[in-house]
Amino acid sequence: MEKVLIANRGEIAVRIIRTLKEMDIRSVAVYSVADARSMHVALADEAVCIGPAQSADSYLDIDAIVSAIEVTGADAVHPGYGFLSESAEFVRRLEEMDVTFIGPTAETISRMGDKSEARQTMKQAGVPVIPGSEGVVETFEEVEKIAEEIGFPLVIKAASGGGGKGMRFVHESSELEKYFKEAKKEAKNAFNDDRIYVEKFIEKARHIEVQVIGDGKGNAVHLYERDCSIQRNSQKLIEEAPAAILPEASRKDITERTAAAVADLHYRGAGTVEYLYVEEEAAFYFIEMNTRIQVEHTISEAITGVDIVRAQVEVARGKPLSITQEDVGISGFAIECRINAEDAANNFMPAPGEIDMLHFGMGRGVRIDSHVYPGYVIPPHYDSMIAKIIVHAPTREQAILRMRHVLDETVIGSISTNLDFQHFLMNHPNYEKNDVDIKFLERNAIIN
Amino acid sequence: MEKVLIANRGEIAVRIIRTLKEMDIRSVAVYSVADARSMHVALADEAVCIGPAQSADSYLDIDAIVSAIEVTGADAVHPGYGFLSESAEFVRRLEEMDVTFIGPTAETISRMGDKSEARQTMKQAGVPVIPGSEGVVETFEEVEKIAEEIGFPLVIKAASGGGGKGMRFVHESSELEKYFKEAKKEAKNAFNDDRIYVEKFIEKARHIEVQVIGDGKGNAVHLYERDCSIQRNSQKLIEEAPAAILPEASRKDITERTAAAVADLHYRGAGTVEYLYVEEEAAFYFIEMNTRIQVEHTISEAITGVDIVRAQVEVARGKPLSITQEDVGISGFAIECRINAEDAANNFMPAPGEIDMLHFGMGRGVRIDSHVYPGYVIPPHYDSMIAKIIVHAPTREQAILRMRHVLDETVIGSISTNLDFQHFLMNHPNYEKNDVDIKFLERNAIIN
Repeated sequence: MEKVLIANRGEIAVRIIRTLKEMDIRSVAVYSVADARSMHVALADEAVCIGPAQSADSYLDIDAIVSAIEVTGADAVHPGYGFLSESAEFVRRLEEMDVTFIGPTAETISRMGDKSEARQTMKQAGVPVIPGSEGVVETFEEVEKIAEEIGFPLVIKAASGGGGKGMRFVHESSELEKYFKEAKKEAKNAFNDDRIYVEKFIEKARHIEVQVIGDGKGNAVHLYERDCSIQRNSQKLIEEAPAAILPEASRKDITERTAAAVADLHYRGAGTVEYLYVEEEAAFYFIEMNTRIQVEHTISEAITGVDIVRAQVEVARGKPLSITQEDVGISGFAIECRINAEDAANNFMPAPGEIDMLHFGMGRGVRIDSHVYPGYVIPPHYDSMIAKIIVHAPTREQAILRMRHVLDETVIGSISTNLDFQHFLMNHPNYEKNDVDIKFLERNAIIN
Repeated sequence: MEKVLIANRGEIAVRIIRTLKEMDIRSVAVYSVADARSMHVALADEAVCIGPAQSADSYLDIDAIVSAIEVTGADAVHPGYGFLSESAEFVRRLEEMDVTFIGPTAETISRMGDKSEARQTMKQAGVPVIPGSEGVVETFEEVEKIAEEIGFPLVIKAASGGGGKGMRFVHESSELEKYFKEAKKEAKNAFNDDRIYVEKFIEKARHIEVQVIGDGKGNAVHLYERDCSIQRNSQKLIEEAPAAILPEASRKDITERTAAAVADLHYRGAGTVEYLYVEEEAAFYFIEMNTRIQVEHTISEAITGVDIVRAQVEVARGKPLSITQEDVGISGFAIECRINAEDAANNFMPAPGEIDMLHFGMGRGVRIDSHVYPGYVIPPHYDSMIAKIIVHAPTREQAILRMRHVLDETVIGSISTNLDFQHFLMNHPNYEKNDVDIKFLERNAIIN
């Protein structure tokens, strides 16, 4: 591998270029016309414009990216996250061109992209999934039987469902038949499809995910877990590693089971297996597997010392994993705050514009991953995240203290950002006590 | 300890304030009128103006700082480096006031401040010193005897010497008597004092120093060593930890002997024992001990994970050392580049002025310690160092690659800095091969 095209933009493109430089691999940036003055363009060894501002015609345009690969002679592609990172079609094109995709095979991406197939696959590989019916249930007798197995509360969902139509929450067995009928009827009316399925209803959970890396040859390691429970409308805001809430036995169990499952699948590349975690039961429930690098990979790098992008490149080169599970320990505690250009006072609407003042808090145990600079104009077409502030300290308490002063020191003007909101969260007593769940912000009317 | 006054400015004041925040200790900044808009003033919990721009009337003015202590009720002082950090007089004043000095006792500072007393003390404590006469030598017979012990080349120096007067380099025994007489005569003429002493002459050496922390109760640990051989006119420019050149046995020997000596002295606080290291002989020669934190402490923090300022505060509080030698390992490799506001093209003259553009390279394994920000006007009265860029990576090779791209990414305008010069050094083949010594720049006519 001599030249890697990064099919992405923003901070993740910058972050990938940095590791490529450290590996003495040439980097190719691609950019839309809106990103001509972007940092990833300036830092890469080469850069190719791939189209207009709209993602659909640039960063999501497979033909445009394939042309850039041909023009530059890149022999590999790193997709970053978002955009084409989980497009089996894109990966198939690369496979046909004999260009290395730094990620899993098209077949793996496809399988994990289908929610119910992913559930089946992971369940068979030994990962805990949300208890419920396997696929659709036909008769009330079947529903009764499942309810007996999984208990209450449970949720009945329409197979073709969406927007809550045909969905019923059932809290006791006396309600079961009534809601079963209602759900079927509503589903029929809404989707002309009365098939339903049944799942255990998880009322209060944390989001805990396990970072894995596999070499496609049956070897996989985990880099422990992250707790990403602080979310706004399912968008992660603050991530931590490891999950401080986890008893050591649960950590060992879920990380080992996840790594074993991933090894079993002959998974190649970095990936994340996401779970809901119910504290009272110390139970994990599989949500989905992301077959790419994630925004919050940084905190796993902090606590394990592993460069995840480097590991991705190595396994994509066909090398067996250079790290063994025994090499990977947890050192300290890391927190990431996502800094977004958005207006917290206006329902967190994206707030693009020119950054005319920029100063990040810095110092020991601080990592800033960002693609912005003073004078940079944030284009309105893409994600509003402009920086990730990561701190690493011996304990969660110390990491919080560090993050507080780093946020205090940071100045971003004169655009609106969620910096103050992050500061508010970092000083919230529930956050400090780690008494949160994925609906924490909504439940406490911190946001609406 | 509840409130610490930082008797310093610039990046080290900022760095100390950050650790105090993480320890929930209040911080007091002091500043000269030239530093009113300095970052340490903005970040501290309180700030007191202590006088005019000239250091002699502000940062070096013991009375002014004592007043600031009284006004703010600070119960401790962190001196940083430079200024009053090695003033026994200042420490004595604090001892009288019953204010904790975060550093050694006045008596220790005094003893280590006297070069010949320091040499005697460290020699007795088991640290290798430059072989030579113990004090002055009277007769030629004595000189002959010492020459037999220490070998050639050696140097004869005038006891009252300076500027090379009364100094003779002797390369073989046949020259000895002649140069002995010449030296004495020249010394008599120059200083009206013909006393001379004799030392082994070290022609080519590296600067290697051992970081130590003692608790004043007879416990001390070392945080391994740093190689600071890249110097311009004895000013360190690039520092590395650990010293890659050192055989493991030499590392173990010098670090253990140094820690034992420091423990033996009941040393309290952080300190650095500096050595010349002659590679061919694998031999160390004591230069001096610095009884304070040093600019380059950051790289020792990187490889050991120890917060040296926190450790200083803990031992100053009278606590025994919370770390044992067994806790302290070496993880990876760290490099620091000092970024100075100076004009490399004009004999590195300081170049103060307004920073109108500022962007540091960032990302994984990068630490920036700095007190400057966009719009900051560097005052002409103080040290020209404006930032320290520190990288930490698994190996020296990877650390160099990382530092190169961080320097590449860094933009500081429109003042003159040594950024390009650091970039040149970081790409110099001798630096890459680690084939350098303390006179490397001068010898290679890289600077004059």
